[in-house]
Formats: sequence, structure tokens, C-alpha cells
Amino acid sequence: MGAPPTRLRPVSFERGFQRSAEGSCLVTFGGTRVLCSASFTEGVPRWKKGSGEGWVTAEYAMLPRATHTRNDRESVRGKIGGRTMEISRLIGRSLRAIVDVKALGENTIVLDCDVLDADGGTRTAAITGAYVALADAVAYGRAQGFIKPGRSPLTGSVSAISVGIIDGTPMLDLPYVEDVRAETDMNVVMTGDGGFVEVQGTAEGKPFSKTELDALLALATAGNAEATRLQNAALDATDGPVR
Amino acid sequence: MGAPPTRLRPVSFERGFQRSAEGSCLVTFGGTRVLCSASFTEGVPRWKKGSGEGWVTAEYAMLPRATHTRNDRESVRGKIGGRTMEISRLIGRSLRAIVDVKALGENTIVLDCDVLDADGGTRTAAITGAYVALADAVAYGRAQGFIKPGRSPLTGSVSAISVGIIDGTPMLDLPYVEDVRAETDMNVVMTGDGGFVEVQGTAEGKPFSKTELDALLALATAGNAEATRLQNAALDATDGPVR
Amino acid sequence: MGAPPTRLRPVSFERGFQRSAEGSCLVTFGGTRVLCSASFTEGVPRWKKGSGEGWVTAEYAMLPRATHTRNDRESVRGKIGGRTMEISRLIGRSLRAIVDVKALGENTIVLDCDVLDADGGTRTAAITGAYVALADAVAYGRAQGFIKPGRSPLTGSVSAISVGIIDGTPMLDLPYVEDVRAETDMNVVMTGDGGFVEVQGTAEGKPFSKTELDALLALATAGNAEATRLQNAALDATDGPVR
Amino acid sequence: MGAPPTRLRPVSFERGFQRSAEGSCLVTFGGTRVLCSASFTEGVPRWKKGSGEGWVTAEYAMLPRATHTRNDRESVRGKIGGRTMEISRLIGRSLRAIVDVKALGENTIVLDCDVLDADGGTRTAAITGAYVALADAVAYGRAQGFIKPGRSPLTGSVSAISVGIIDGTPMLDLPYVEDVRAETDMNVVMTGDGGFVEVQGTAEGKPFSKTELDALLALATAGNAEATRLQNAALDATDGPVR
Amino acid sequence: MGAPPTRLRPVSFERGFQRSAEGSCLVTFGGTRVLCSASFTEGVPRWKKGSGEGWVTAEYAMLPRATHTRNDRESVRGKIGGRTMEISRLIGRSLRAIVDVKALGENTIVLDCDVLDADGGTRTAAITGAYVALADAVAYGRAQGFIKPGRSPLTGSVSAISVGIIDGTPMLDLPYVEDVRAETDMNVVMTGDGGFVEVQGTAEGKPFSKTELDALLALATAGNAEATRLQNAALDATDGPVR
Amino acid sequence: MGAPPTRLRPVSFERGFQRSAEGSCLVTFGGTRVLCSASFTEGVPRWKKGSGEGWVTAEYAMLPRATHTRNDRESVRGKIGGRTMEISRLIGRSLRAIVDVKALGENTIVLDCDVLDADGGTRTAAITGAYVALADAVAYGRAQGFIKPGRSPLTGSVSAISVGIIDGTPMLDLPYVEDVRAETDMNVVMTGDGGFVEVQGTAEGKPFSKTELDALLALATAGNAEATRLQNAALDATDGPVR
Repeated sequence: MGAPPTRLRPVSFERGFQRSAEGSCLVTFGGTRVLCSASFTEGVPRWKKGSGEGWVTAEYAMLPRATHTRNDRESVRGKIGGRTMEISRLIGRSLRAIVDVKALGENTIVLDCDVLDADGGTRTAAITGAYVALADAVAYGRAQGFIKPGRSPLTGSVSAISVGIIDGTPMLDLPYVEDVRAETDMNVVMTGDGGFVEVQGTAEGKPFSKTELDALLALATAGNAEATRLQNAALDATDGPVR
Repeated sequence: MGAPPTRLRPVSFERGFQRSAEGSCLVTFGGTRVLCSASFTEGVPRWKKGSGEGWVTAEYAMLPRATHTRNDRESVRGKIGGRTMEISRLIGRSLRAIVDVKALGENTIVLDCDVLDADGGTRTAAITGAYVALADAVAYGRAQGFIKPGRSPLTGSVSAISVGIIDGTPMLDLPYVEDVRAETDMNVVMTGDGGFVEVQGTAEGKPFSKTELDALLALATAGNAEATRLQNAALDATDGPVR
Repeated sequence: MGAPPTRLRPVSFERGFQRSAEGSCLVTFGGTRVLCSASFTEGVPRWKKGSGEGWVTAEYAMLPRATHTRNDRESVRGKIGGRTMEISRLIGRSLRAIVDVKALGENTIVLDCDVLDADGGTRTAAITGAYVALADAVAYGRAQGFIKPGRSPLTGSVSAISVGIIDGTPMLDLPYVEDVRAETDMNVVMTGDGGFVEVQGTAEGKPFSKTELDALLALATAGNAEATRLQNAALDATDGPVR
Repeated sequence: MGAPPTRLRPVSFERGFQRSAEGSCLVTFGGTRVLCSASFTEGVPRWKKGSGEGWVTAEYAMLPRATHTRNDRESVRGKIGGRTMEISRLIGRSLRAIVDVKALGENTIVLDCDVLDADGGTRTAAITGAYVALADAVAYGRAQGFIKPGRSPLTGSVSAISVGIIDGTPMLDLPYVEDVRAETDMNVVMTGDGGFVEVQGTAEGKPFSKTELDALLALATAGNAEATRLQNAALDATDGPVR
Repeated sequence: MGAPPTRLRPVSFERGFQRSAEGSCLVTFGGTRVLCSASFTEGVPRWKKGSGEGWVTAEYAMLPRATHTRNDRESVRGKIGGRTMEISRLIGRSLRAIVDVKALGENTIVLDCDVLDADGGTRTAAITGAYVALADAVAYGRAQGFIKPGRSPLTGSVSAISVGIIDGTPMLDLPYVEDVRAETDMNVVMTGDGGFVEVQGTAEGKPFSKTELDALLALATAGNAEATRLQNAALDATDGPVR
Repeated sequence: MGAPPTRLRPVSFERGFQRSAEGSCLVTFGGTRVLCSASFTEGVPRWKKGSGEGWVTAEYAMLPRATHTRNDRESVRGKIGGRTMEISRLIGRSLRAIVDVKALGENTIVLDCDVLDADGGTRTAAITGAYVALADAVAYGRAQGFIKPGRSPLTGSVSAISVGIIDGTPMLDLPYVEDVRAETDMNVVMTGDGGFVEVQGTAEGKPFSKTELDALLALATAGNAEATRLQNAALDATDGPVR
């Protein structure tokens, strides 16, 4: 049952999904779907004014019924949970890793990643989809002249993938039913040219060894290479978003 | 520019959009898209326990980039705005108007209406789509045996439509650019057999007369009849949701 | 039992009730009493600065023991309920309908409507009393020279009344014990010259027909005419507030 | 200007002001008016269940326009300020000082003290008025049989008064304009038979001496004796509240 | 058992405890330990800008396990309790009583008093320790030139002590086990030269008499004199904080 | 300047620091000091009742003046920041990795980690110190008989260390001034016998390579071995906490 251990689940990117956004992408990894939108605005938060630099940040959330049973809305509860904050921060850091804020100039891009369907790997899908939305928002900013001509604010691409150890076997891109069984769970964020941006590995049951860690990283490196190829293909498609 | 005054914008219902929900429907009215999902759970809130009656409630929200410029998340602000609460309450009341809580038994159905794209009439689209999701959730509850055999908990159908007066002319189902110009704005919730469930008319500029009110109600009655026909067609389709 | 169907309950306006306010009125509709005060301040919120226009807004609340059993304070709960927000917004919209913000100039008037005793129709009593407080605050602003001489910022008067259908009979200005029995509940806000500002009708039980709606609107029109007469009498009284 | 130094401002108690409450009193001290209501309910908070003891607590608040300029609502700000909490706690402690919780039995009385007009001494007026409301609520509880026959839950009466030093002279029951000038501000809560329940003295400018403290306490003792006399007169009146 | 009635528990001041603060002092009164730190910053809150005056404020809190059983964090609960606010306000007022805000100039000093171990008298220990931290922060401000040369912003010293009546006997500086038994509890804040800054006496059981009040004040006066002597000794020590 | 690259800063553990706690330890890593206390209570949260299993959780916070400039209290802001939540969750997960909840039985241990002085590596110091507090709390639970005799609830020990790359060189246990310069920042949580519990590596500037990751992990492994040795020495000391 589930995905074979060393291949990604079916992945797709539907650009321009949310029609008002400067960049928008509905990303699918198997049964997981995340709506990633990038809002481009001129200007920066007060604490960055006059710095000549831009700002990129992200917010992650789940729709109440993305999961098997309904989750209460965080807006109704009146506060954001730790998991949500942690993932929002991770997405923001991951995207900033490939943004040259000087080249972006005093512009702000906010990435909103809303999980429509959660079947494992929502945070890594969010990062991978958010990059596509970001690329479209940057293209918009350049086309509109908000970003100065010259070198791109994007220094490369970024993607992420989850890996885990199940019954002693390292596996790639786990759906939810397998994810909860994993002894070790790892999220690996990488640039398109193979550098590590973020490595977060957690032993759910017993501790993991350096050998296991190496096997997981190798698998994640392969998975991210494939994700990068698919991102590029989506961005190269001639039927890109028209606004 | 905009929709002709007496016809609905293109309407569609995509059932089963959110795959985990007992009932789910992506409803489209022109440029407005709302994801409506119905979560069916056994049991009722504490204050209804032992009453033999069920409970139906609703929550409405907008994704940050459903609109032309980004809105802050209410979860981040830490409180829900008045508009959101008002619409959530309206949706809940509207659906309860066609639910027989005795026949529903001690079960709860929560409707989540999340606006993906906002181009006017989001609250009326939400009600119209939520009915379709509700119908699927009720069918689920009956098929699973959570709802007792016998008469349906649904006493009819419900839909809603917005109408407004622009430059003195009553118009139906306004997109956002026209909605903001309307002198009077009215939302009309009706049952499938033509009864009024809720009438909310507001003079945005100068007060309106009884004659204008009558013209708006006539237009809304025609619009709701059409919406009812489209709801029924969607629910009759052989390609309904499979869980 | 209760009020006859087509007459208002005993109504009174006690101007100058809260001695510090620029306008203040304790309004009574039968067993319902609402303290309405209008605070006049020079200047407008930041988002209106430089517009040359004024701002009018309202807040509604109930004292904990206005009702038969005590309600928790919203300040203690740490958030405002949906019903409170909805009514605050309704009062603000209703009063803005008769205010010419250009003539008001860059001044702000905040209406506070605090229910001392709740016996049905608190929101309509609040609107009706708030108009009297508003008129006194506008008079204060003109007398003090904060509002420029010339045309009045008030384009007319506004009042509101609740109507409902009980046992099939349309009735006017229902006390609480009847209100909870009503099959249809409607709040109608009108200008002094008979225009509709807001119509909010809700079927509590079964849907209502156009015929019933028309009967309710006729009743509300008569009730608002009477409320207007009483407002004017109160404002014409020689024992108006002295500050 | 202002009150003579050794006499209370005009004091009155209007019992039964809020018609739904088991005890209610609009207390006036000069320009200060506080609506004090006592809500009697059977049962106690969970942490007192089975103790055989009752519970008495209090909440204090100001209406937004009780003061010369409008204060934001604490419900809108989403949190209660330190001053409000401090006064609420003081009122609760003061009343509990004359309540025999064993004799009260497992019943709860909540005192709500809402300031309608604030002209100095609102917290002491609140305590003094709350006692009258409490006495009526206790009488209600005894008449209804919720409190067992036998000794009264009230072991005496309680009142409070503010005193201050102005230009070196100790003064009683200061209105707001004098209160803000006071070098030392003291609130003194006493039982009807002259015992001290709470003494809170604060040097606003320079520290005060033991001699000054003694003079203030003597003044407060006289003021509380007068307040006690007036409370008793109000409670003895034949036109007490009828429910 | 416990401290003799007329002597302070062992008292110590460890200056420079928190190494980043401009002034810091770990104060010990028997089993009670409070970390008091003073943060000196140039500038004042917006509402004091241009006044030429400085600002001194305080915040008090307890670590979760300062007490015998763990208390929930107020940050986790999302709001600050009444007791915490009340004590924070008391500490701020007490320190401002000996600060000449004109001489301080437009600088702000924030006192943080965090209770590490609570064994009675935490608020009075906090005031007494905060004075030492404040003195060091003022010395820092003068040494750095943020405070103009000339007269000191400190007009004197301040200390506080708790007293209570146990079994009819007035006692000084009670540890927790005795504090909870006290019939009357009083906190007395005094200047180093014997003036009263704040007197807060509360009858926990039966009311107290003027005679008892006088005895408690005499005891508190002696205790504060001793606390003043110990503060001065700590500040005179050659091993003062080095930054 | 700063610590040599491959050695820990001076480390110490002061057990029994907070006298009321079942386990308590003031841990020092160079200029960083964290007060870690473990509260042992019988019983578990509702959702674990009847499971036969215990519960271990953690909360992390910084005192306002632990840092070079003062931070606002999260209790005053009314919500907990993302960083605080993230670290609290990390500490809880790390300690649960070495706890056998079955052997713990239905008991709860809450770890409070309050940073007194922050000079880099506060989260890793917190984990390392919390283990010592946890061990003492477990010993308390066994001594008191709350934990059944038999196998220990601790399956091993846990410690954590931060590593980073500065100017291309992997370095161990960085103080704050170096931490902010690091190109890559990694926190590594390990068991006493060398298994990985959590690996969190973040590229602050340019991405890192597998070679760099390996070097950092080797350094962290050595650092954790030393931290483990020091934890054991502290726990073996004869001057352990006496309650």
C-alpha cells in the first residue's frame, strides 16, 4: 500500500489558481493539495524602510476539513497553534534562502499556503508550491517595473520533500497513513542546485543512527531533484498565468 | 460591462471537491468561488444532549488572497471581524430553516464556507453551495445509518441571491465592481418552493422605496428559482461524490 | 397579554441622561431601556484624514443583568460575540444613512448604546434613541463651531421598529415573551420621511410569504411614523439638555 | 469650590433600578452614579461544590461615556485593564467581609457595578451601593427559600468612602476635580459597626505622615457612619423593590 | 514555628544578578526570592514625548514553579490575572514616589520583578529589591551621561514590608504558612526617611480596629527602617555591579 | 574571541535551585543561564486518562531582561510568539524521546525552562538542563511511590548542543555574538548512548553541503558526549537536592 519507497507521489502544479493573486499555484502531491498564493506589494514593513531591501514572509494554514476529521479554525479559537507557527516560519525561511532582498528592492511578497486536502507532507508541498507562486509574483514585479531591471531577485529555486523510516526502511514522500507509522520523520529543503537549506529530522520512536540519516538524506536529495525538474517544467509551460 | 440585469452569472457546482468531507462542493457564481464542506459527526454539543435533536451550524471565512488586495488572516489578528461573524450566522440560520432537527437525530453537521475567489455575492454563493454539501452529508448520514430511516431531515432546499439597484435599475447577482456602485444592496434567502427565509436589504446611499423593494424581491425570486434548478441538477448528476 | 398588535409600547426619551456626553438619551420602549450617548470629538480616524469628511460609528452592549438571567461580560470573556457586533454594525449603518459626512466635516461622533433592561426590541430602541443623542451632539458641534455653519449634517431623522408574525398575525413592537414565539421576526429601519434604510426579516420557523412580508412592512411603516413623531416631540421639548 | 471638607456629597439609593435583578440599586454620590445589581443563583462554582458554602463576587466597569472624554470599551480592546480588575477585586473582598458563606448555603451572588457617571469616588460608591443590592438579593433568597431559615448570611453592613489631603487639609468624599489635586488619596471600607475592612492609602505626591493618616481615618470613620445611616434608611423604606 | 514577630527574616541583595540589565538585584527575604531588574532606555513613551520628564514603570510575575504547586503561565493563558496587574501597578507607584521625573529627563526605566521562590511577602520583597536595581540603573544613566549632571532623579529610597495579625498578635514579615493564617494582612510602603507611600490593609477574617492598625503600622515602620539600612549597605558595598 | 571551536563553554548544573519543585536545575553554558524545573503531579490530562501512560511536556520562556535589550513579556502581549512555541515543542519532544510513558504510569511531569541570561544556545541548554531536573523529578516520584517499582521511566539520558559554520569553519556551542554571524546553524539533540533524537539545521546565508553537514554532526556528537558526561557527574554528586 502507498507510494513506492523511492518515487514521489503524482505531483502537479496548477498556476493561476487564485485569480487575484500576483502568483498562485495549486500544488498536488498525491492526496495532498495546497493552495499557494504570492501577494506582491510595493513597500516594506516599517522596520525595513529605507534599507533598500525587500521582504518575503509566509503564512500556512489548514482549512477545517482538509483532514479526516474536522479541525477547529484557529481564527475561532482566537490563537494560532504552535504547529502552524512553526510551519509558517519554516516556509518563510526556506523561500528567503533563494531571494536576494537587495535585488528585490523595497517590495514585499507574502506567501499564503492554505491546505485544501492533507494527506501527509503538507509543509513540504507548501514550500515546493510556494516557490512556483513566488516565481510568478517576481515575474509580475519585473514586468510591472516595481523590481528594477538587472539581476533577478531569485538566486535559484527551492523545493522540499519529506522522508521517513518505516519498519527500518527509508522511504520518500509518505502519505499520511504511512507518515504516522514512521520511526523517524525528516523534512529536507534544498535548492535546485543541490544545496541544503533546512534539515529537520525527528525520531518519533527510537533514536536514529548516522547511517540512517545518510540514507534519508540521499533519498531526499533524489526527491528534491525530481521536484525541481517538475517545478521548472510547470514554470516553462506556455499556458502560464495571464492576469 | 458586467452581467445583464436579470440573469445569473455562470453557475457551477463541483461536488466532492474536498475529499475528506462527508459533503463538499466548490460553488462558482461568475468570478466568485466558495469551497463549501459539510462535516457530519455523531453527537451534539452538550447543551443539546438528550434532546433527540441534531445541530447544524456554519462558519464562513475568506482566504487572504480571495480579494484584489490581500487581507490579513483573522487567526493572525486573533479575533474574528464583525462581517465574518454576521455572515457565518446568516449561513447557519439559512440552512437550519430547511432542516428538521428531530429527523436529523442527535447528529451535528458543520458547514465550512471558505471563499477562494471573491467577486461579489460571496455570502449568497456560500448559502447556495452549502445546501449542496449539506444534502450530500445528509445522504451520507442516512447511508451509514447514523440518521434513522424515515422522513428526511431536509424539509426542502434553500438558495440565496444578491440583488441591487444601480443607477435606479434593479439588477441580479452583481459582480464586485457593480456591487460597490449599488445604491441598495439586498440578499434574499429562499426555499426551493418560493418561501422567504431571510431578507436583508440595506440602503447604501439614499433610502429605497416600497416600489423598489418589490422590484428587487421579484428579481430575487426569479434568481432563486434558477439557482434551485441548478442545485437540483447538480445533486441529480450521476457523477456524484464517491467516498 | 402583551402589547396590542398595532400600537407601540409606551415610549419615552430622557435627554441628557449621562451628564458628560455631548448628546445622551435614555430611551424606553415598554420594559426595554437603552442608554444612548453620543460622543463628539474633533478629528477623524487616520484613514479619513484629509478627506474633509466626518465619521459616525456605534457600539452596542448589554449590561450583564439587563436580562432575566445574568450574562457574562464580553470584556471578561475577552471577545465580543457575533450578535453584539452585528447590532453595533446595524446601528452605525442606520445612523450614517441620515448623516451628510461632508457637512459634518472632519469630526467624529461615536454612539454608545448600552441596554439597561432588555424586554425585546433592544436594537430598534437603540437606533431610535441614538438618533436623539446624535441630534443633540450635532447641535453641540454646531453651537461650539466645530461644525461649519450652513447645511445641517443631518439629512433627516431615522428610527427603527421590530415587527413579527405570531400565530399567523403580524404584530408591532413585541416584548420579549412574544418575540421568542414569533414565526417571523423583522427589524425595519426607516427615515422620518418614510424611506427604507434597512429591512432584516428572518423566518424563525416556517418561511414567510410575500403577502406576510407586505403586511409586516405596512405595520413597521406605521410604527416608525409614530416613533418619528415621538422623537421630534422629545427634541422640540424646551427642557432639552444643557451643558 | 466643591464639597465642604467634612460632609458627604448628596447621596441617594434608588432600589429596584434594573428590573430583572434580584437586587438592584442606583447609587448617587454627588455627580457619581453607579448601577449596582445583585444576581442570585442557586449553586456555586465547581471548586466550591459540596462545601456547603456560598460564593459572592463582583465585577466593576465604566460605561464608555461615564467620563469627560470617552473611554474605549474593554470588551472591544479584548482585555480588562488593571484598574478595573483591582476595583472588582476590592468590591468582592469588601462584601465578602460581611457575608457568612455557611449561612448563605450553596448559592452564588454576583454584584455588577456599572458606573453611569464618574465624578470621583466610583469604587467607594460602588461598594456602598452594592451592599444595598446585596441585602435585597439576600432577602429574595430567604423569601424564596433558597437560603435556609435561621441566621442571616449578612453579619453586618459595609460601606466605603474616599478621603484625601488637599493643600494640606484632610477632606471627605472628593469630586473628580479635587481628587486629581489630592496629595494623598485613601479609600476606607468599614463595617456598619465601625470595624476596618480595607484601608488603601496612596501618596500621590509627597509621602504622608502618621498624623495625616490618623486625620484621614477619623474623617473616613465619620463618613462611613453617615453612609451606613443612609443605607439603612434606604433599606427600611416601605417602597422597597417588588418583584 | 516561623519568624519571631518583630524581626525581619534573613534578607540579602545580590546585585548584578542578571548580567545584561543596567540594574539587577536578586533579593531574598527568608524563603522568598525575587529577581528585580531595571532596564534603562533613552526616550519615553509617545504620550510623554516633549514633556522633559522621564517614566518609570514595573511588571511583576511569578515563575510557574515559584509556588508549592505549579501555576499556569499567564502568557499561555493569554491574559494577565488581576493579582498580577494589581501588584505591578503597586510596584510602579511605589518607585515613582521617590523619583523626580524632571531630573530623570526623557529616559525610561522599566522594573521587572520575577518571583523565583514565593514564601510570603513577594510584593514587598519586589519593591525593596527593585529600589536597589533602580539605584544601579540611575547610576548607569548618570555615568553614561543619559541623565544630566545635577540633582539626582532619586529623591530618597523606598522599601516595603508586610505585617499581619495572627491569633491577635501583630507580626512582621510573615512567611507563607503564617500569611494564610493572618486575620489581617497589611503591606506598608515607606520612604527611607519614614514617610508613608502606600498603606494597604485588608481584613481577611473579622474587621480590625484602629488600635490594631496602629500596632501594625508601628511594626511596619520598624521593619522598613531595617530594610532601608540593608538596602543602603548593599548599595554601599564595594563589590557593586560591573558592566 | 569567543569559545574555541571544538570545546563546550564552561558548563555547570545547580540542582535544587527552585526549592518548591520536585526537580530543579540552574544550567549554565558560558553566559547562558536557564532555570529548568520539573513539576511532578499525579494524574494525566483528560485525553490520556485510563491509558496507563504518563505525560511529559515543556514550556520555554525568556525573562524580559535575559537579552541585551529588554523584550516585552508574552503575557503582556497576550500571545506567545512562534519562536517560543517552537522551542517549547522541541524541548517536550526531546525529553519524551527518553521517557517510557508506560513505566511512568499515569503521572505528569511539566518542564519549565526559563532563560535568566541569554548568550546563545538557550534551547540546547534548556534541553540539557531539563534532563537533570527530569531525572530528579522521576527519582522523587519513585521515592514517593507514585511511580511503581520496576524498570525506570527513563530509557536513557538526553542532551543537546548547537553547532554552526563561521567563516567556513564548523564550530561548537556558539555564544550569541558568533551565533548571529553563523552561515549555518544547527541544533542536535542526542541520547546519552549516541543516537540522534532531533537534527535541525538551517542555512542562514548560503546553502550548506553534505560535507559541511557531516562535519557539524561529528562536532555535535563530540559535544553531546561531553554534555552527557557532565549531566551524569551532576546527578551522581552527593550534594543532590534534598526536599
